[in-house]
Amino acid sequence: MCIQMLLKTDRVCVCVCVCVCVCVCVLQDLDLAAVYVSDAQYNRNIFFDTSPQAVRLYLLYNHWVPQVLLYVFILVDLCLAIFEDPAVVPLPVWATMLVELICLSAFTTRLVHYAKVIPRDKFWKDPKNICIIVIVLLSLLDMMIYGALKATDHNAVRWSRVLRPLLLVNVTEGRQLRRAFRSIRNALPQIFLVFLLFIFSVLMFSLMALKLFVKRDLKTTEGEPYFTHYLDIVFDLYVLVTTANSPDVMMPAYNANFFFAIFFFLYILVNTYIFMSVFLAVVYNSYKKYLKEEVRQLVRAKRHKMARAFAVLQERREEGAEPVVTRDCWNQLVRLVQSDISTAHRELLWSVSDDKNQGYIGKLAFVQLADLLNIQVITMKSRPHPLQTLCPALYLSPPSRLLCRVVQHRAFVIAFDLIILVNAVFIGLDEEDPVIGNSEWVFLALYMLEILLKLYAFEPRAFFSRHNFWNWFDTIIVISALIATIVNTAVESSLHYSPREILDIVFVLRVLRLIRVVDSIKRFRTIINTLIRIGPTILTFGQLIVIYYIFAMVGMELFKGKVRYVESSDPQQTDCGNPLLKDSAFANRNYCKNNFNDVVSSFILLMELTVVNQWHDILYLSPTATRLGYTQNTQKAMCLRVAPCQPSIHFVPVSLTACC
Amino acid sequence: MCIQMLLKTDRVCVCVCVCVCVCVCVLQDLDLAAVYVSDAQYNRNIFFDTSPQAVRLYLLYNHWVPQVLLYVFILVDLCLAIFEDPAVVPLPVWATMLVELICLSAFTTRLVHYAKVIPRDKFWKDPKNICIIVIVLLSLLDMMIYGALKATDHNAVRWSRVLRPLLLVNVTEGRQLRRAFRSIRNALPQIFLVFLLFIFSVLMFSLMALKLFVKRDLKTTEGEPYFTHYLDIVFDLYVLVTTANSPDVMMPAYNANFFFAIFFFLYILVNTYIFMSVFLAVVYNSYKKYLKEEVRQLVRAKRHKMARAFAVLQERREEGAEPVVTRDCWNQLVRLVQSDISTAHRELLWSVSDDKNQGYIGKLAFVQLADLLNIQVITMKSRPHPLQTLCPALYLSPPSRLLCRVVQHRAFVIAFDLIILVNAVFIGLDEEDPVIGNSEWVFLALYMLEILLKLYAFEPRAFFSRHNFWNWFDTIIVISALIATIVNTAVESSLHYSPREILDIVFVLRVLRLIRVVDSIKRFRTIINTLIRIGPTILTFGQLIVIYYIFAMVGMELFKGKVRYVESSDPQQTDCGNPLLKDSAFANRNYCKNNFNDVVSSFILLMELTVVNQWHDILYLSPTATRLGYTQNTQKAMCLRVAPCQPSIHFVPVSLTACC
Repeated sequence: MCIQMLLKTDRVCVCVCVCVCVCVCVLQDLDLAAVYVSDAQYNRNIFFDTSPQAVRLYLLYNHWVPQVLLYVFILVDLCLAIFEDPAVVPLPVWATMLVELICLSAFTTRLVHYAKVIPRDKFWKDPKNICIIVIVLLSLLDMMIYGALKATDHNAVRWSRVLRPLLLVNVTEGRQLRRAFRSIRNALPQIFLVFLLFIFSVLMFSLMALKLFVKRDLKTTEGEPYFTHYLDIVFDLYVLVTTANSPDVMMPAYNANFFFAIFFFLYILVNTYIFMSVFLAVVYNSYKKYLKEEVRQLVRAKRHKMARAFAVLQERREEGAEPVVTRDCWNQLVRLVQSDISTAHRELLWSVSDDKNQGYIGKLAFVQLADLLNIQVITMKSRPHPLQTLCPALYLSPPSRLLCRVVQHRAFVIAFDLIILVNAVFIGLDEEDPVIGNSEWVFLALYMLEILLKLYAFEPRAFFSRHNFWNWFDTIIVISALIATIVNTAVESSLHYSPREILDIVFVLRVLRLIRVVDSIKRFRTIINTLIRIGPTILTFGQLIVIYYIFAMVGMELFKGKVRYVESSDPQQTDCGNPLLKDSAFANRNYCKNNFNDVVSSFILLMELTVVNQWHDILYLSPTATRLGYTQNTQKAMCLRVAPCQPSIHFVPVSLTACC
Repeated sequence: MCIQMLLKTDRVCVCVCVCVCVCVCVLQDLDLAAVYVSDAQYNRNIFFDTSPQAVRLYLLYNHWVPQVLLYVFILVDLCLAIFEDPAVVPLPVWATMLVELICLSAFTTRLVHYAKVIPRDKFWKDPKNICIIVIVLLSLLDMMIYGALKATDHNAVRWSRVLRPLLLVNVTEGRQLRRAFRSIRNALPQIFLVFLLFIFSVLMFSLMALKLFVKRDLKTTEGEPYFTHYLDIVFDLYVLVTTANSPDVMMPAYNANFFFAIFFFLYILVNTYIFMSVFLAVVYNSYKKYLKEEVRQLVRAKRHKMARAFAVLQERREEGAEPVVTRDCWNQLVRLVQSDISTAHRELLWSVSDDKNQGYIGKLAFVQLADLLNIQVITMKSRPHPLQTLCPALYLSPPSRLLCRVVQHRAFVIAFDLIILVNAVFIGLDEEDPVIGNSEWVFLALYMLEILLKLYAFEPRAFFSRHNFWNWFDTIIVISALIATIVNTAVESSLHYSPREILDIVFVLRVLRLIRVVDSIKRFRTIINTLIRIGPTILTFGQLIVIYYIFAMVGMELFKGKVRYVESSDPQQTDCGNPLLKDSAFANRNYCKNNFNDVVSSFILLMELTVVNQWHDILYLSPTATRLGYTQNTQKAMCLRVAPCQPSIHFVPVSLTACC
């Protein structure tokens, strides 16, 4: 079997050498060690079966194709909300149900695969697996009930849709998301204490406000009684914490006597500034604490796995000597773990590990391998320009060299920055003027010329290498703009008018072209690169958007069709299709499109609530009927917003900048 | 001279011992050493003259009486704004000028004193001193010009009032405030870069919005054209960053096509969340960095000063031995530095320093003294209860002991917590009901009984010791409530009605009494104690409120009298005394009292702007005349708000919690 495997490698010397080494590196052992190293490299914590068959199944389980497929199925499952009632694009019930069935069977397949990989007792002890099984079963049950009710023309609710985002959290790959949830959960007890104290403070201030204002007969601007009922005061003051009704709630009291401004000043100071800062501090602190603990555990698990891999591969050179791993064994292992690694890169890693050039490495050096593999190595090959190899006489001639020097000069960059600025001014002007309209072609030609000149002066493969984000950005934007402009002109000359959609794309691409200026200023580039680098971490927390999905689902079932957007000639006089909303702030501000009638509207509405401003007006969908239900829902949304979302948005960059 | 001083001490053995010690501790040396130690203890960094006379002057300079006086004069100077035109309480010009002259002469006296303490060249090199001289001279000049103009009935502006807050920053004692300013200044270059990038982003998004919406002929809810002028778009989108016009600015575009919500979503994500977080991160990071540096410098300076004090006091016990400081010398020094220190406390400090009990300490142990003196030592004297000494038979009798045990029991605390809860319900009810009104007397009696019982069970001096914040709080609130209720009843029975002002005080005190519940729950007490402990640091940054003073002064000179609050029957129809404001959002929302007509209104207005919400409506004081000026002013206020105020309010607790 050793020979069989070695036939795959193309060097005979390796074969001879390994066979001399008492043939320790058996294929199965290598597979197992490779799995351990790969788990250590990607921080996977799966306790798999070590039998050869299970190892092979586990390798398949970790392959990127089934992983990507799983995410595609989850995405499809989540996107079903667009087509299900209340739908953006209505589809028949059987179609969405069929798709959902396919998704569910895909999740089941994946879970069965997972069950084959790990020991049975481990499988049933893991709450993640139980969770997925329960979700799949509940979804099936819901589909059956829904189908039966629909078939008999009853009213039915697809309640299991709320569970869909939980799949994203509970699949094996949702490690990062689970970590994010865990850090939030760990912060909850402390947050809860501060929250209680905060609520107590709001209640005390409300009681004080009640005693101060109830006998004064003050009126709000709308002529309603001001601060006369305790619960209304609590609600108004709670809204004030989010600053959404900031000066308005104070004005009647302030107009009566300016000493009352002190009351509101103290309230805002204590509840908006001090308590919200304490919330942030508590979240930041416990996040930092648990992150440290998690990282410590990850490092320990990684070392443990690497030690196991070492134990599988180790051999003793002499009796009583320390066990070691030979170079050839190591080479095969690395090739198995990361098949796309170049020989130069592998040699580099080996020379780092075996710094004394002994031909073998001990346990300590071997354990580093997982981290070494994670280091990104950029191979800079100083290849000659293809034109130089094709036609050296022309490319190396003095005029060509001068051109290259000009393009590489700083002045070339500055010249094009100036062109971009001029272009910005032209974009701002009215494009229906023929001069301005035609100038677009000039600018497009200039940008194309720039890219071509750069491709002439620099080696194209280096220019388009993976880490040159800005070169890719430039080229894609300019070529897209070129295509869009050509399409626009073609359509215009045939239809004699430009469709707005194409024009929109053309305009957006034109403006995006201007962003390039940022790249020329070194310090800006640093900031942008930092943001791009911390992007993945923010994205992990961004996945918390699944919470929005749950709220959207609940909101849609509760409030669909209650508010409708009606195109009307006088926006001031609309009632959003609901007589209860007549003359409410909601209708007057023309918020009718902020409703739960489909999943897109729901998401936009929840986004508006996250931004906080006017949220109290949005939730007054109706002063009587829907108010209570809406309030509860939004309050929950608010609490959730205050607790995990906003601080997480805030503290992630803070903690990262603090770490960097 | 040594004898003369030692006569002050009451122990003869000390006298003998010191005179044997070749009388090294000469009075002048001790004075000098005491000054060094005291400077090290309080982190003063003043390079004073070491001549005996200058040292004595320096001691006087650091005395608490002139320091407090200085702050009183600064406060009086700042408060003059209440009495100067435009005044809350108008006073004749000569009176305010006279007070200001007295203040200015006090500052000059303090500066002359300082000049006598430190070497002349150091004095003139220090920008703080130059600053104070310039401020005093400019104020005098301004007063002369203003007086002359007023005397000849011309229009005059008191422009030097803007300089007053700078005194607070530039006096020697404003060390903490200068440090706060320095940390802000150090963060500015980095903030500025992010700010430029942020502005660039806003401009790009505005350009995109212009191209997307200008041809669509959309209308706002008020029927005005939507997003047609570039600068208006920039302003609207800038307001959106502060979330103040959040859903409204989006609604027309969203009503036209829901894809435009993506534009606004991206805008809010990039500019409100990402950029504002980056601002916070940059401020936090650079604050942390420079704080570390400052602390390092402080520690170095402290060690340097202690080494100097050691050099003054040191003596050699043998030839070639390490220099040391004897116990007696040390004792005298500590008594000089901190005269109110108890003998037991001093002995404790010595035993910490001289851990081998040698009777003398080396340099290393001596240098710790400044830190040792800063450690707060709480002396717990287990004194018997005064009643026990007065009447032991009664106090130690079984019923009395039972009473003490009851009071000390947990159930006693819980019982009174329940009483407080019942009281809270009673407060919420209408106090004109005679049952409710009389119940107040019951509660007052119960609270008084509680305090008396506690005083019976616990030693009164321990009960009212300095660190027992909550006992003090309780007693003061309950006794104040008792006095206020008695006064109220007395006034009511003589006038047959209750004046609102007294009732307000009574109500506030009643509600404050409820806060005590927090003290019974241990975890809440911890949070509150933490907040109280970080209070001083927050207060230092709170002094940045001097920036508000400058804005208030500038605003008052520019906008006084432009907007007036007029009591009117129909608040909807007012024009705030300015025909330009007719039908503006400002007048309709009844914001007329938000003006710059006196210093109190200005502060309240600036506070409202800090809270952000509706700031764009507040600054639209008038759509035509005052708008530009107001906008500029508010924009500045906004920038200042975004940059130092909000993050500082946020990051102070964060950094402190991270440190703790």
